[in-house]
Amino acid sequence: MSVVQMVKIVGLGAVALTLSVEWLGWLFCRLWPRKISRGPLKEVFFFPTEVACTERLFTPNSPFPCPCPLPHNINTSFTRLLVHILSASSSLDLCVFAFTNLDLSRAILALHTRGIPIRILTDMDYTLITGSQIGAIRRAGICVRCDSGAVHMHHKFAVVDGRRLITGSLNWTLTAIQSNKENILVTEEPDLVLPFITEFQRLWDVNDPARRHLPSITEKPASLVL
Amino acid sequence: MSVVQMVKIVGLGAVALTLSVEWLGWLFCRLWPRKISRGPLKEVFFFPTEVACTERLFTPNSPFPCPCPLPHNINTSFTRLLVHILSASSSLDLCVFAFTNLDLSRAILALHTRGIPIRILTDMDYTLITGSQIGAIRRAGICVRCDSGAVHMHHKFAVVDGRRLITGSLNWTLTAIQSNKENILVTEEPDLVLPFITEFQRLWDVNDPARRHLPSITEKPASLVL
Repeated sequence: MSVVQMVKIVGLGAVALTLSVEWLGWLFCRLWPRKISRGPLKEVFFFPTEVACTERLFTPNSPFPCPCPLPHNINTSFTRLLVHILSASSSLDLCVFAFTNLDLSRAILALHTRGIPIRILTDMDYTLITGSQIGAIRRAGICVRCDSGAVHMHHKFAVVDGRRLITGSLNWTLTAIQSNKENILVTEEPDLVLPFITEFQRLWDVNDPARRHLPSITEKPASLVL
Repeated sequence: MSVVQMVKIVGLGAVALTLSVEWLGWLFCRLWPRKISRGPLKEVFFFPTEVACTERLFTPNSPFPCPCPLPHNINTSFTRLLVHILSASSSLDLCVFAFTNLDLSRAILALHTRGIPIRILTDMDYTLITGSQIGAIRRAGICVRCDSGAVHMHHKFAVVDGRRLITGSLNWTLTAIQSNKENILVTEEPDLVLPFITEFQRLWDVNDPARRHLPSITEKPASLVL
């Protein structure tokens, strides 16, 4: 076989391969568009949500069915929120104004028991409200810092494993979950997650009791416009 | 030229063209990654923000410089928020718990003067707070509906032109903007925007004074998990 023939065969082989890959990709996109073109995780859910039993999320391997009278094995906005919190495998950073919900407190304590590093930043005034879970969480040995400024630390976001953002209008209270009209947005889109990670770290440093009065820490956030 | 030769030339031409396009795409991505891979608009900004003059946003063609003592021509989280609101060209749907900020009220009235259809959904109790702008907005002829339930309509989101979502922890109040720690997330990612459009329409229908008691309207939101 001559060199020219070899070049032609290789050339035709390459064209066949390239076109096949392109066409297969196109075909896959057409047949299963949701599997290919979705990109990073994106979810939105709204509240109030149905009240359902959450026991299976905390004890998935229990052989005994939960005897409580609530509906079981149904997906609600709240169970989705719990699933995202409980999915943490390496870290959880939580920045929340009001925290009184017992199930969410249980989820935090369960992650702590699993050895997941947790940092919680909250508003000092709202640690004093009836039913606040911050005391119980602190007593369990989880690191909590409080924003004690004259105004509100009004955020309601969490970053799971440094890559999944959970944010919205929802405070971690029973009223917010079962009564109010609220929203939660979950995303792993880096352009949306990274500014929250940076802001959490800034607020965490600002509210370090040992460093609070050092002049090097910026008191106002940078406008993180991407 | 024989048919075989023709096939070979066309084949080699196709391979050259396909590979060139692939390689040029790869090169463009490497050289200008932010221009290619960003996808839909995504912005995050945090509050409190610097106080700056916003006059130029409302009167961009004015030949006279604003005489006020505030800093001019600087970008802050609040000017970014105003720019997004004022960018509306076909519609604005706003779902907000508390609305007392005068600049945001001025932005809404400016859009109304331009003939942009505006729908505002708010919490009935919070229309009565000191400085609420809802009365002035209603008097201007903008359509406002109030959620008069016993619990809070706690959302703080807007949808601009049916495609740009503005959501976060921030109520439309002066305290939230100049004092509190707050966040705003802006995105045109359809998977995130569409659930908010659906939820707005549902709440708009639920709170139609003429239809509020019809049984066909769902009182609880569907869990819009995408």
